[in-house]
Amino acid sequence: MTANASDPIFLPEGFKFSAVKAGIKASGKPDLALILTGPKTRATALFTKNRVVAAPIQVGRAGLAQSRGRVRAVIVNSGNANCATGQAGVRGCKAVCEEMGRLLKVRPSEIFPSSTGIIGVPFPAERVRSHLGSLLSRAGSSRGDLCGFADAILTTDTRAKIASVSLRSGSASITGIAKGSGMIHPQLATMLVYLLTDVVASPSELQGLLREACDESFNVISVDGDTSTNDTVLLLASGASQISVRSVKKEFRAAISQVCRSLAEQIVSDGEGVQHVIRLHIEQARNRAEALQVARTIAHSLLVKTAWAGADPNWGRILAAAGRSGIPLDPAKIAVIIGDQVVCKGSIACEFDEEKAHDHLSQAECSIRVLIGRGKAAVEFLTADLTAEYVRINADYST
Amino acid sequence: MTANASDPIFLPEGFKFSAVKAGIKASGKPDLALILTGPKTRATALFTKNRVVAAPIQVGRAGLAQSRGRVRAVIVNSGNANCATGQAGVRGCKAVCEEMGRLLKVRPSEIFPSSTGIIGVPFPAERVRSHLGSLLSRAGSSRGDLCGFADAILTTDTRAKIASVSLRSGSASITGIAKGSGMIHPQLATMLVYLLTDVVASPSELQGLLREACDESFNVISVDGDTSTNDTVLLLASGASQISVRSVKKEFRAAISQVCRSLAEQIVSDGEGVQHVIRLHIEQARNRAEALQVARTIAHSLLVKTAWAGADPNWGRILAAAGRSGIPLDPAKIAVIIGDQVVCKGSIACEFDEEKAHDHLSQAECSIRVLIGRGKAAVEFLTADLTAEYVRINADYST
Repeated sequence: MTANASDPIFLPEGFKFSAVKAGIKASGKPDLALILTGPKTRATALFTKNRVVAAPIQVGRAGLAQSRGRVRAVIVNSGNANCATGQAGVRGCKAVCEEMGRLLKVRPSEIFPSSTGIIGVPFPAERVRSHLGSLLSRAGSSRGDLCGFADAILTTDTRAKIASVSLRSGSASITGIAKGSGMIHPQLATMLVYLLTDVVASPSELQGLLREACDESFNVISVDGDTSTNDTVLLLASGASQISVRSVKKEFRAAISQVCRSLAEQIVSDGEGVQHVIRLHIEQARNRAEALQVARTIAHSLLVKTAWAGADPNWGRILAAAGRSGIPLDPAKIAVIIGDQVVCKGSIACEFDEEKAHDHLSQAECSIRVLIGRGKAAVEFLTADLTAEYVRINADYST
Repeated sequence: MTANASDPIFLPEGFKFSAVKAGIKASGKPDLALILTGPKTRATALFTKNRVVAAPIQVGRAGLAQSRGRVRAVIVNSGNANCATGQAGVRGCKAVCEEMGRLLKVRPSEIFPSSTGIIGVPFPAERVRSHLGSLLSRAGSSRGDLCGFADAILTTDTRAKIASVSLRSGSASITGIAKGSGMIHPQLATMLVYLLTDVVASPSELQGLLREACDESFNVISVDGDTSTNDTVLLLASGASQISVRSVKKEFRAAISQVCRSLAEQIVSDGEGVQHVIRLHIEQARNRAEALQVARTIAHSLLVKTAWAGADPNWGRILAAAGRSGIPLDPAKIAVIIGDQVVCKGSIACEFDEEKAHDHLSQAECSIRVLIGRGKAAVEFLTADLTAEYVRINADYST
């Protein structure tokens, strides 16, 4: 389901895109991007649950409330998170929204800001403001324009992340654009996701659909277990197709879920230093919350993650992590399945082909099931190995 | 406080030690060790809180209950954790205790077993049993005998860990021997600690003193956040000095605390791949539990740990980790101090000398304080950086 350069990208009607080099990233790559949309667009968003939140989260959340879900433009900068920048950071963010509002002749609350990059560095508000005119003049609705936006929002990502599904045989569509590679443990992480559709929908209709889709996608992935201060998922519905979301609810629900899951998978597989993506299935839990708690404890265990880096079928580490998850597991009821081989049952080693298990774990994507014998709930959690490359990337990010 | 080869080791009276090569470790190094003690010895122990526990934990816990805290011998093997080995593992462990009981003419419940090493590999009970006679015949009470024991219990550790304090100007003493390097996040990890003293004390007196000392030492350290299935801290009092613990309670409390803290520090500084030991002080918490929760979230953040590996004063990652700790922090009240420099106050960057902060973090041991502005409670948590070497060690442990 991962998008390839050759996958179709449906272009929802009612959106224009642009990107420029504003000099925020030291690399000199594009770092300021824009989505423009029309007056009928309605929006909803989910934000990080971190108590430390970036200025754009504060400003964007307040703006959506004040405008009652109206958004006319989304401004995203990469290279600076505008987090831990105090009141100056909030003022800078507001100044950018005000300037764009003035240029578009709309209220500042209808401008939705996002930032991603390093934390604690003063936000270059003047630099951003001085490039808004240029952003506006370049905005276009082609596939190239959309891809330009998708590239400009990246930081340590190695590739753009786009997923797209058509609705009603092409009369409408939903297309998502995401960035995120480290600090990925979204509780609804800096993961930024923009979902664009041209159906007609109210903010409250969008809210329910977005929450449901995120629970099954961005909320069940983890690269490093760190939740960002800037995570944002924004869903914009332009209404330009004139097809109401109510009339295609089932199809829309499936489509948004597919787009979100594809983006979530692209984020994990492009995780910093990631060699192997692990589909971790926790089964036989009493409920979903319990399954998620076991999944997260295993997915965040350094010993488990490093064993995965070596494609090592060391199920003892998986068992040890499950045992400290806080769920009152009965070891006699736990089984671990790597690929299609039961490697441990009742917490005891089974006879299995170690070479075959090693081969399974050597693949780019592999499957591990942990059965805990307590009930019928299950969760599929997408995570990754921890490699020396991850350490290298993160041991010299700011200095 | 870390022990050097030249530090004095006081030899509490009433204990003998030995170690042999039983062929459990592939390396061929000593892997089976014994502590022998007399009939007046009383003991207490704390075990891992992991739900998945090794056979020796089950057998040792039951034995201590049955014998009401009487221990005549401690048998430790390295190279095999006897965990996830099912009923066969438990039978093997019991068979070892029975054989030693027969040789010593004491009850099997008075033999305390410990194992450390790989999880899920059948326990070589026959091999262990066949070496018990040789262990017994070599037992001696010299410093060399004690150091031989300390060496034989190691796994990925690079050095033996011993700490020792004398009581009453040398009329009694307490000496601790520990192993542990990975899977270190003791809730009360495989960390094994043996504390030996020659004071006279009942199991209940020992229990209170041990719990208190562990709370301030092994329970406030973390290398990788993984809690082992085999963690054990055993305190043995031989009574041979004829000095009652009641008569030296204050001095004993200070001494056991000093020994436990020294061993805890030795474990962290010998942590797998560790370059920098971090003294993380969480201050201004409402209570100790809250301070610990913030400390553990920061200490277990991959982004924070990798920044430390680069001696990178990236306080934004510390702030982001604190923000997701689950404590309702007010970002406006958070300050971060690296060495003697305030680098962030009210969640905003302060002017500070980055080179100086980098130099501080480049030391073998450094200090970071996080003030959270909620109260008066504080905790000092000892942790370490995450290096590419840790990944290397753990990506090919079992294969």
